[in-house]
Amino acid sequence: MRRNLAFLSDMLQAILPGDVRGRGPVAASAEAVRSMLGRPALERLSAACDVLMGRIGDASMIAVAEQALAAYAELDESEKMQFWELLRDHFASDPADIRKAFAAYDKEPTEERLVPLFQSVEPLRQTLLRRLNTAPGATRLLVDMRADLLAALRKDPSLRPLDADFAHLFASWFNRGFLRMQRITWASPAVVLEKIMAYESVHPMQGWEDLRRRLDQHDRRIYAFFHPATGEEPLIFVEVALMNETPSQIAPILTAPPARGGSEPDTAVFYSINNTLRGLKGVSFGNFLIKQVVKELAAELPSLRTFVTLSPVPGFARWLASNQSPAAVSLRQELQGDLWIDDARIASRIAPGVEQLAAAYLTEAKHQSGAPLDPVARFHLGNGAACWRVNWPGDLSTGGISGAHAVMVNYLYEADQIELRHEAYVREGVVAVGKPLSAVLASKKRQEIRV
Amino acid sequence: MRRNLAFLSDMLQAILPGDVRGRGPVAASAEAVRSMLGRPALERLSAACDVLMGRIGDASMIAVAEQALAAYAELDESEKMQFWELLRDHFASDPADIRKAFAAYDKEPTEERLVPLFQSVEPLRQTLLRRLNTAPGATRLLVDMRADLLAALRKDPSLRPLDADFAHLFASWFNRGFLRMQRITWASPAVVLEKIMAYESVHPMQGWEDLRRRLDQHDRRIYAFFHPATGEEPLIFVEVALMNETPSQIAPILTAPPARGGSEPDTAVFYSINNTLRGLKGVSFGNFLIKQVVKELAAELPSLRTFVTLSPVPGFARWLASNQSPAAVSLRQELQGDLWIDDARIASRIAPGVEQLAAAYLTEAKHQSGAPLDPVARFHLGNGAACWRVNWPGDLSTGGISGAHAVMVNYLYEADQIELRHEAYVREGVVAVGKPLSAVLASKKRQEIRV
Amino acid sequence: MRRNLAFLSDMLQAILPGDVRGRGPVAASAEAVRSMLGRPALERLSAACDVLMGRIGDASMIAVAEQALAAYAELDESEKMQFWELLRDHFASDPADIRKAFAAYDKEPTEERLVPLFQSVEPLRQTLLRRLNTAPGATRLLVDMRADLLAALRKDPSLRPLDADFAHLFASWFNRGFLRMQRITWASPAVVLEKIMAYESVHPMQGWEDLRRRLDQHDRRIYAFFHPATGEEPLIFVEVALMNETPSQIAPILTAPPARGGSEPDTAVFYSINNTLRGLKGVSFGNFLIKQVVKELAAELPSLRTFVTLSPVPGFARWLASNQSPAAVSLRQELQGDLWIDDARIASRIAPGVEQLAAAYLTEAKHQSGAPLDPVARFHLGNGAACWRVNWPGDLSTGGISGAHAVMVNYLYEADQIELRHEAYVREGVVAVGKPLSAVLASKKRQEIRV
Amino acid sequence: MRRNLAFLSDMLQAILPGDVRGRGPVAASAEAVRSMLGRPALERLSAACDVLMGRIGDASMIAVAEQALAAYAELDESEKMQFWELLRDHFASDPADIRKAFAAYDKEPTEERLVPLFQSVEPLRQTLLRRLNTAPGATRLLVDMRADLLAALRKDPSLRPLDADFAHLFASWFNRGFLRMQRITWASPAVVLEKIMAYESVHPMQGWEDLRRRLDQHDRRIYAFFHPATGEEPLIFVEVALMNETPSQIAPILTAPPARGGSEPDTAVFYSINNTLRGLKGVSFGNFLIKQVVKELAAELPSLRTFVTLSPVPGFARWLASNQSPAAVSLRQELQGDLWIDDARIASRIAPGVEQLAAAYLTEAKHQSGAPLDPVARFHLGNGAACWRVNWPGDLSTGGISGAHAVMVNYLYEADQIELRHEAYVREGVVAVGKPLSAVLASKKRQEIRV
Repeated sequence: MRRNLAFLSDMLQAILPGDVRGRGPVAASAEAVRSMLGRPALERLSAACDVLMGRIGDASMIAVAEQALAAYAELDESEKMQFWELLRDHFASDPADIRKAFAAYDKEPTEERLVPLFQSVEPLRQTLLRRLNTAPGATRLLVDMRADLLAALRKDPSLRPLDADFAHLFASWFNRGFLRMQRITWASPAVVLEKIMAYESVHPMQGWEDLRRRLDQHDRRIYAFFHPATGEEPLIFVEVALMNETPSQIAPILTAPPARGGSEPDTAVFYSINNTLRGLKGVSFGNFLIKQVVKELAAELPSLRTFVTLSPVPGFARWLASNQSPAAVSLRQELQGDLWIDDARIASRIAPGVEQLAAAYLTEAKHQSGAPLDPVARFHLGNGAACWRVNWPGDLSTGGISGAHAVMVNYLYEADQIELRHEAYVREGVVAVGKPLSAVLASKKRQEIRV
Repeated sequence: MRRNLAFLSDMLQAILPGDVRGRGPVAASAEAVRSMLGRPALERLSAACDVLMGRIGDASMIAVAEQALAAYAELDESEKMQFWELLRDHFASDPADIRKAFAAYDKEPTEERLVPLFQSVEPLRQTLLRRLNTAPGATRLLVDMRADLLAALRKDPSLRPLDADFAHLFASWFNRGFLRMQRITWASPAVVLEKIMAYESVHPMQGWEDLRRRLDQHDRRIYAFFHPATGEEPLIFVEVALMNETPSQIAPILTAPPARGGSEPDTAVFYSINNTLRGLKGVSFGNFLIKQVVKELAAELPSLRTFVTLSPVPGFARWLASNQSPAAVSLRQELQGDLWIDDARIASRIAPGVEQLAAAYLTEAKHQSGAPLDPVARFHLGNGAACWRVNWPGDLSTGGISGAHAVMVNYLYEADQIELRHEAYVREGVVAVGKPLSAVLASKKRQEIRV
Repeated sequence: MRRNLAFLSDMLQAILPGDVRGRGPVAASAEAVRSMLGRPALERLSAACDVLMGRIGDASMIAVAEQALAAYAELDESEKMQFWELLRDHFASDPADIRKAFAAYDKEPTEERLVPLFQSVEPLRQTLLRRLNTAPGATRLLVDMRADLLAALRKDPSLRPLDADFAHLFASWFNRGFLRMQRITWASPAVVLEKIMAYESVHPMQGWEDLRRRLDQHDRRIYAFFHPATGEEPLIFVEVALMNETPSQIAPILTAPPARGGSEPDTAVFYSINNTLRGLKGVSFGNFLIKQVVKELAAELPSLRTFVTLSPVPGFARWLASNQSPAAVSLRQELQGDLWIDDARIASRIAPGVEQLAAAYLTEAKHQSGAPLDPVARFHLGNGAACWRVNWPGDLSTGGISGAHAVMVNYLYEADQIELRHEAYVREGVVAVGKPLSAVLASKKRQEIRV
Repeated sequence: MRRNLAFLSDMLQAILPGDVRGRGPVAASAEAVRSMLGRPALERLSAACDVLMGRIGDASMIAVAEQALAAYAELDESEKMQFWELLRDHFASDPADIRKAFAAYDKEPTEERLVPLFQSVEPLRQTLLRRLNTAPGATRLLVDMRADLLAALRKDPSLRPLDADFAHLFASWFNRGFLRMQRITWASPAVVLEKIMAYESVHPMQGWEDLRRRLDQHDRRIYAFFHPATGEEPLIFVEVALMNETPSQIAPILTAPPARGGSEPDTAVFYSINNTLRGLKGVSFGNFLIKQVVKELAAELPSLRTFVTLSPVPGFARWLASNQSPAAVSLRQELQGDLWIDDARIASRIAPGVEQLAAAYLTEAKHQSGAPLDPVARFHLGNGAACWRVNWPGDLSTGGISGAHAVMVNYLYEADQIELRHEAYVREGVVAVGKPLSAVLASKKRQEIRV
């Protein structure tokens, strides 16, 4: 043990029954932790973590892990912050150990020498988290713990290394191979359905009837990923409308009655994708989910020809607000007061400008990393989709207007292009552009030349 | 990428279609790997691993991972060895990277600086294995891959670092929290039952009728752990007999007809525990399984008072053969030819000697690590059980005689002692000893003094 | 075939293709029925029934049964009435056949002779219904068909024999042995939960949150019976509150927050029992359900001592309105305008009178059959329960006041008395009475004597 | 109650405790039956049946039904015969009741008057059996009870009316609509698989490996029907081989290794159909099963073009033995000693004769009812199949030679002909004949003319 355990040791010595006392901190047992009942939760948690990192056997591990997680659940905000600091400072790696292991490796940089170096560099926290994860239901609790940590991180960036440990482990635990996809239907457990309702944030649900419309009609589907260790918790889900066109507006999809049974759908529209657990930030499932849904739908409905999204453009309004080009300045004036919503003449006058600037935003506005500024664009382009068409006005909801002046986009998934586009995007930052968007970009260029 | 990819690069350039060629090794795509169909499996596997480590997105990852695993399945022994060497040499860590990251850390040993050091030290192989694991069914294949590696390791110990990577990942993937226990019954799928039959190596099964006796009678049970990513594969299972005594011989357990329904059992006997997948070596489930079975049985059958094993002593014969104490030498002579089996007089004469030496073996013979020499003893003592009683003759099967001169042992699990014993064993190497064994040890001591 | 099929025959001859025509009515095939597509639904239905009763083999039966049920679904009210008449008149028994079979039997009244008599007496309709029931999903449709018939019966009592046929068959099909009980929880499919909400008519549900309160809290349960042929349709369900007293009012049960976890419940209160499908009228499940729920709860929660209902008294207000005894006349005046609801003085003054008259209603008011007038009383007394206590005011809902002036009753199920009470009730009409009710009855008697 | 209950009444009076005694036979309760513990099983059974037919409520019914079935299980052969006689004589209909109900009906033959007549004619046994069927697991036990009855029937034909009651009820209980089809695979519960092995009597299984060959290979299938009230008991199952030809011999199907994955099968061969429970005699499932399997296979494997059987001809040898035609007499001589099996010259000489006589047997030999003599032919022709081809030698197993001199037949199921053939067969006894069989029949005719 490489940390200063004095305070814990003292505490344990003070509180332990005589027959357990005197064995040093390593001796702390599940019995010892239990004997602390009545002590503040943070003390119990610290002691439990300490015990977990000792020479504990499997026999006690689950019990102590349960005690630790139960104690964590009792912490308030400031105690949680103390716990994060404890993890950062006392369950880190030991610089002396690292230097020693590195010196040995440096002398003879073999793979054999690397193993101890790896072990010394890996923070103790990772082992601790793995051991906490042996308790029943622990995985879900650890995901929530990380959600707490992400909140704390905003206040104290020095906790970032802790987050790296969570992220590292979650990438293993939530491996694609452990996920199973399920279609969510009206026959699904209510406990799952209410989570779907609660987690839908792209186009929020208005209650059970709204939910029912989105999954119990022949032309609507919802699919989700589940993980065995988080049970009935959907980790991500996608909502699909089966249609006979590429839609340009979201409202009809959300409110239209079921299509007549007669015509077979040729278009599957992904109109909402939601991650659910904040604590799984950075563990990406979306691409796998879309891919598997496309596969399943294509097998079930051979009439489907087109797989396309109807997506929000969440960063457009903010980008436009900060854009000082003449076109942007002029458009901002027109958009002020949202008069266009009720005045068709204004709307038709400004439509080309909106579309051109939206097109520019999607294809030209870049993050400092070089990737597109729009997060939804990053997601779909990174999946190998093409940016197909700008739709305006596509989303007249309050959120749609405030975030994107009502602009929506279709991203197109073409089976035989996905891989090439994906690679061109990843390697060279190429943004694949569909015909309609090309036309808008070309008209913009002509206009700029004219100007 | 830090490895010499020249050969791969050349190969890919040579075989790729024009429109893919010329993008450098990183450009290699799933398409590229597919285009290699017809090339030797090892080449395809190498290329696929290369691609997986490139800037590949999720979109292509699963497909390439599948190709890699399919190619691996075609390798022969010597190609596998080449593959291990490739992993060892080209998917390792880069000493230059490590030195650079260490230098930065050494200057300012903060947690922030540790993250890049950790990343440089973690072998590329771990990322590779994680990516391979995205393919459907990959986890099972990777477990088998490690079984191959363990075999190769015996020939070439320099592969040990590879094994450390597998072990590290498996510890995360096969976390206790992801396992579910199931009772195996005659209503279980045949595909599971035949695996149980195949994997039972402690007391091998004689076919379906034997299996049926062990799980379809009211006084017999089998419980197993399953993992979501390995489906119907039992990872470990334990066989239990419900009795009204602590048994001293295995044969009646294996062959006796069901106990009369009348009496309620007071003793649960764990008479066989089997790990199944060699590739999961070192990932311990046994203790968790026993603990959960005890819990489930205690809840279901309140009449149970005693939880005990009837266990083999696999290392006794070998230890005795190398023991030069007068008692051992003399006993060896008596045992020669196994005449005692058919001659009750010999048997009763040598019984005390066998028991005393077996008791000595269990409590005094130590591994160089300080732990008991007997692996089964290490397992149960490490779980917090006590070494209860030596039984002779307990196992007259060929294997029982050749491995342990027919000696068997009961290990006793006492709920309120498990934790204390476990910790005393782990911390101080204390071997908990039951009354019957104490008596044997005492008689041995008296005899030695007399002598 | 014993019916005049002239019209059908003519119709079939007219519409059949040449190669099928000319074989007589028996020749009518599934093909023939299919060829009628475009004809009115009633014609198709008649023809399909005709075909089903012909020498049809299993090969065509399912297809024709499906066609018949599909045609039935298209009928309007008056066409349904025509169909009932068709069934009554043309799918009945043939008097000539019956007379002939009886004559043979009369001459020699053996069991052998009885078989043809039985066959001639059994209406053709029963065979027809059995054959209709071969179609997928038919059982559910036939239950709904009978619900239609029950409605028609009110207009035309001559259809009663048809109903006897349905009832006879349903008693076989919905045999207790084919039902399975399931606990309904928040993890049940939404499609089941919404049916529970829709079918709850004793204490109607106010939506999903109300439902959730009734099944997702540790002190509430819902159990239902399902039948394999009607799938996710609950046939009957009972709602249970786990408490620590015998309740006297329904409102707290419906609205109270969950009981504290601390105390173990000693009383299981059945506060709502609902049959669901009108078409299953007369097929009784309730008693079986209560019995099995008691068994399951007793096994799961050993702390339970008392199994009791809190039940409505649906016929009390009507009975009181027609009761000309001085006490009733006087009470009616007091109850007028429901002033007692807001005036505690009135309420306490009239309470004894309400309780005494309710007690009289429950124990003395009889149906012409000799059974208690109150249907809920008939049900629970018939199940072997005792009439335990009158509660006033127990149900202040609009329905509770209009139907029973807010009176509720507890019926007590005592395991060791159920059978004796059941038999005393069935044989001799004995109404078992609990202590509190006895006291009320005694006070009433004293009062009457005084008067 | 219309039966002479004197003996039962006396018995009950004699054995009942004082507080139950004196209520007359109707008073007999479950308690009374329980109090008879220790009395002979037949007495207990009689009393329980008596109680079940009394004014028993649902409350006691299940318990008494369980007691009755438990008592039945203890009867020996002669006691069972006494029980059948009791059912026949005392649970029959009452002639006086029937006469009275008929007289009323005769005077006014309305549907209303028919209901009491129907009730008087329906034997009490049917009600008794329905009530017995309320006990858990009763359906299975009643099926076995009927199997016992069928055995008894051979000794005493006067029991036939009892059997009619069972048959009548089973037709309702085992309605097609209540059955569910399941594919049996290597993942099915062992408890189901061992039943499949035990029940296969057409081509008996040689153990688990044989079973596995028949269901775990890509070119083999087994499908079965299950009923909710008989749980894991397959009621009927069919074995299918997926091939690329219409087979003429059974041995290769039973022993060949799996077909190469390369070619898609175009032919589904039903090579074994087995009913399982003798007690379900006369309740036909086979046709439904074949129909549904064809549907499922056609949907899953669009490459399938031909659905055909390879069937035994169980009555051929017996028919040939009794045939005095010159051709038959001559063939019998040739077949004597089965020398042809080892002598190819004999075999090729007699082949035409065997085929011609087998063809004659299948198409001309008739049961006294007018249907084909061969039961397998009756089954498939009744299902709408055509008799396609005689195969000789098709089955060289001991059973195949002794029953049919090794002859086998293919029956062909052609979707668009099934209904027409079925109806032509049912109505006019037309045996549909395939081309190969036609050719044999033609050659036979030519030969006869020549002769």
